[in-house]
Amino acid sequence: MNMHSINFREKLAKFSERWSPKIIAQMNDYHFKLVKIQGEFVWHSHSETDEVFIVLNGEMSIELRDGRVDLKAGEMFVVPKGVEHKPVAHGECQLMLVEPAGTINTGDAGGELTAPDNVWI
Amino acid sequence: MNMHSINFREKLAKFSERWSPKIIAQMNDYHFKLVKIQGEFVWHSHSETDEVFIVLNGEMSIELRDGRVDLKAGEMFVVPKGVEHKPVAHGECQLMLVEPAGTINTGDAGGELTAPDNVWI
Repeated sequence: MNMHSINFREKLAKFSERWSPKIIAQMNDYHFKLVKIQGEFVWHSHSETDEVFIVLNGEMSIELRDGRVDLKAGEMFVVPKGVEHKPVAHGECQLMLVEPAGTINTGDAGGELTAPDNVWI
Repeated sequence: MNMHSINFREKLAKFSERWSPKIIAQMNDYHFKLVKIQGEFVWHSHSETDEVFIVLNGEMSIELRDGRVDLKAGEMFVVPKGVEHKPVAHGECQLMLVEPAGTINTGDAGGELTAPDNVWI
């Protein structure tokens, strides 16, 4: 078995592209992913699962059809299954996502921002 | 739905007891829990699930039968299902656990350090 800790800073230094989650750990059939974001993502939802956002560095908002949740480092939010949301960040924000293996970043929306779901770093 | 961010510092300020995980969020059938630890826990394993440790503040080690993983703030580790482990911290360490709802902190070992599995803060 892997006997090493997983260091967020070291993993974040391994990539610079945005909106493309990288897997750093697996727990049962769930993946822990790091992602860097800046700007506006697309409105989308995940019909089969909740999705966890944990902000590591920076600030972001999750726009919802009936409101907005602001997040900064040291904060998390769970987007419920099926709820439309749009991540937004003015400056670069670095976050960890927790969701079932195989979850697609753009959910039911698809489009050009759709990233591979299987890239480990 | 809950439209508020979950702030780790605010949640950590709500309790002081050690070795007693408090639930702060649910994603599908998984719980995100905060726990404060200091000293040595008991050797135990979880026969049905992996278990995620994410260190928020301080330092800790996870002793394994064939080694040890040292963790500090900004680091995580996944203890595989069925693997015996013993958390240890010299000073107080504050961490987040991610595991299925209903997971018992002492796993298959039981004993006096067994804490309730259903306390939300």
